[in-house]
Amino acid sequence: MSFKPVDDGLVRRLCEAVGEPYVLTDPDDKEPYSHDETQNLSATPEVVVRAGSTEDVSAVLRLARSAGVPVTARGAGTGKHGAAVPVHGGIVLSLERFNKIIEIDRENSFAVVEPGVITETLQDAAAEVGLFYAPDPASKGSCHLGGNIQTNAGGMRAVKYGVTADHVYGLTFVLPDGRVIEAGGKNRKDSSGYNLHRLIIGSEGTLAVVTRAILKLLPLPRHRSILLAPFPTLERAAQGVNAVFWTGITPSALEIMDRRSIEFGARLKEKKFPFMEAEAHMLVEVDGREEDRVARDLEKIGEALVHVGAIDVLLATERRKQEELWEIRRVIADALKTFTTYRGVDTVVPRASITTLVTRAREVGEKHGLEVVSFGHAGDGNLHVNLLRTAAQATDEEWEVTLQAAHEDVVKAAISLGGSISGEHGIGLTERHHLHLRHSKEAIELMRNLKKVFDPDGLLNPGKVFP
Amino acid sequence: MSFKPVDDGLVRRLCEAVGEPYVLTDPDDKEPYSHDETQNLSATPEVVVRAGSTEDVSAVLRLARSAGVPVTARGAGTGKHGAAVPVHGGIVLSLERFNKIIEIDRENSFAVVEPGVITETLQDAAAEVGLFYAPDPASKGSCHLGGNIQTNAGGMRAVKYGVTADHVYGLTFVLPDGRVIEAGGKNRKDSSGYNLHRLIIGSEGTLAVVTRAILKLLPLPRHRSILLAPFPTLERAAQGVNAVFWTGITPSALEIMDRRSIEFGARLKEKKFPFMEAEAHMLVEVDGREEDRVARDLEKIGEALVHVGAIDVLLATERRKQEELWEIRRVIADALKTFTTYRGVDTVVPRASITTLVTRAREVGEKHGLEVVSFGHAGDGNLHVNLLRTAAQATDEEWEVTLQAAHEDVVKAAISLGGSISGEHGIGLTERHHLHLRHSKEAIELMRNLKKVFDPDGLLNPGKVFP
Repeated sequence: MSFKPVDDGLVRRLCEAVGEPYVLTDPDDKEPYSHDETQNLSATPEVVVRAGSTEDVSAVLRLARSAGVPVTARGAGTGKHGAAVPVHGGIVLSLERFNKIIEIDRENSFAVVEPGVITETLQDAAAEVGLFYAPDPASKGSCHLGGNIQTNAGGMRAVKYGVTADHVYGLTFVLPDGRVIEAGGKNRKDSSGYNLHRLIIGSEGTLAVVTRAILKLLPLPRHRSILLAPFPTLERAAQGVNAVFWTGITPSALEIMDRRSIEFGARLKEKKFPFMEAEAHMLVEVDGREEDRVARDLEKIGEALVHVGAIDVLLATERRKQEELWEIRRVIADALKTFTTYRGVDTVVPRASITTLVTRAREVGEKHGLEVVSFGHAGDGNLHVNLLRTAAQATDEEWEVTLQAAHEDVVKAAISLGGSISGEHGIGLTERHHLHLRHSKEAIELMRNLKKVFDPDGLLNPGKVFP
Repeated sequence: MSFKPVDDGLVRRLCEAVGEPYVLTDPDDKEPYSHDETQNLSATPEVVVRAGSTEDVSAVLRLARSAGVPVTARGAGTGKHGAAVPVHGGIVLSLERFNKIIEIDRENSFAVVEPGVITETLQDAAAEVGLFYAPDPASKGSCHLGGNIQTNAGGMRAVKYGVTADHVYGLTFVLPDGRVIEAGGKNRKDSSGYNLHRLIIGSEGTLAVVTRAILKLLPLPRHRSILLAPFPTLERAAQGVNAVFWTGITPSALEIMDRRSIEFGARLKEKKFPFMEAEAHMLVEVDGREEDRVARDLEKIGEALVHVGAIDVLLATERRKQEELWEIRRVIADALKTFTTYRGVDTVVPRASITTLVTRAREVGEKHGLEVVSFGHAGDGNLHVNLLRTAAQATDEEWEVTLQAAHEDVVKAAISLGGSISGEHGIGLTERHHLHLRHSKEAIELMRNLKKVFDPDGLLNPGKVFP
């Protein structure tokens, strides 16, 4: 691909379009927009534009197009596969100040939001009126709804409520030529032409820039209860996943964590967690409208887990105790970042295959001399397999080579079990060379041709998704 | 569009590809494939091919393409908007014998099916192993899953479980050039490239032919309870819809029916239904795992309905009594077909607007001198507004002209309330001239360009969806 550089004329026109304070060219100002949460990856944009409206987005895309300059739209930069990193330079189009909750429509149970709204901000606003925005990515306190839509984010509660796509009923999006398209709406059913908005979801900013979303809200489940169950092996914990579903109860979270995950977390928090000697842990949450029912359901799950080999079951009904247990799970990612050099592989498999995946991941680690730390959304078959550098990789280069090979082995293991490359993080930059492992040549060609319909000049987030 | 006719050479090649018994050219044999459930619409295909495998479908599409002949894929022909009627002749590609349930995967809770499986057949097979295929179109006893997917069918239970799209996790589909694409799978989450299968759902056979589907199954809710509540006006019943949701309970069905719906149904069944003197009726079903809980939830809903003006509440806990109440709802469509000349308009609006829609539909009837009979899935905002011919339309021509105008007025009323053209029946042939009322010129152009990527020669189901 050959792109034009950003020249002074373009910068001037961008300033005229969105206002000078929102166009950043100073290297220090641009630095925060040069990376996301992907380790060892950054690329500085030539210019950052902070859009505040659909009109801003449309104007910026039109200007970029006539100048032949690429545009990488960006939410909060919490992505882990480099999707928001402008590897071909050009414009980073930040949506962070485009962040109003336009409406919480109680009567129809929908929210209408701008893309820069933080996920938890919407959850809180909905809860205030007795409603519930279910998607719950681990980064909910900082990630943006626009980014959630573009990666089809999942999270803890997807096991019961589904992924972001299941909650998006309408989108307003802007094409690279500046045209604004409205698709979907507040209708619970709609069989009236192609589902344009469904194609945008998960397209990682390569097709269009989302400027407004209509999101389904649910009645707020007022009660939650949580259990933590230690297991003698991670495989045994993984087998417990199906034991939970056989009860007929769908939990609102079903996580597993291996011993090393827990140890890293405890080290970061400088405290002991329960059952730290166990090889694996399962965390199950049940939610609902009625306290007694929630308690009964969780007890039933606890009994099923003991039956399949849980060493113990710790129930937490009080909110404070529940937060303590959730902390065990939530702290892992930060602990890995703090104490290790690693890469997280966002594997997903049909959920009954998670036991095999756990074993295969461990074998990949042994083969390549890497430590493997696994945890994640076992109820969805979505396991975060983390490959950690060990003393065996003496040089950075050795680590890079080993990591690439091990990463690909993990992806191949997942795919051989009917799984996929990424459950909820997307393809971005770091997974694009795995795309052909998952999709046929014909399917990838079809995707490329769809991309051309939206973005014939290839200016939107170039270098992403496709190999 | 200019298509080539089907000649003897093509017929011979089709016979070679799929077997002579499966290629129909005799007019009597072809007649059943010339219409669906749309009143006064038929078009005879030049040839009917009854495909039995993905290879068959691929071969037929390749042969049709090299001959320049259009192909209309067809399920059970239960559509109401003419989507399966081959208005440009050519080949009807029937999928009725391509009808195996390939797998009920209990461990992962998915079904893998061929397109010609009857919806209820899958429901029954799933129920036998304690699982549940939730989508429940009124024609479930005869309609095919392939057709459900291509129209994104809804039905009674969509209010709780969502539409067909919410249950489709993977598709195998064939492009007009014969290439076979597999998209999705048994993964609960998958952020690995564009969601190709989501674009196929609801595309009414204009993009590709679906030959296999992976469908989500749920734990079977073993208990159901139903209530029937008469209301003094249809508007009051419509207001009751939100009263149900304010309880925090999501019913598994929430239907309303006006007095004339009930009268036509009672006439067909030659018996009396409860509360026949009431202007409107609401039917609510609650399902769940626990009998006492289901009963308690339904009682709570009954109390809420009395509070907002229901005249009475009739609870049915026994299966036999429940079937009697469901019959009241299910018989309406047949009764209208038997006793009236009519057109059903499949309106959908954000659910809080259904009260206004009911009033507007009645006004449209008064304006044009038509009788209006309304019933449907009020919990989704999906109301079937039926326009009935009266003595005021003396000639067939008068009826046609009046009907077109009234139909458009109903569609406009729905759209002015944030609604859409069709909730669950699709666009097909009969609604295509309304597409521009719902979507902008730019959105329709984008849809057309996507169509060109899949079907550059415009051979798949020509004359449908687009104006």
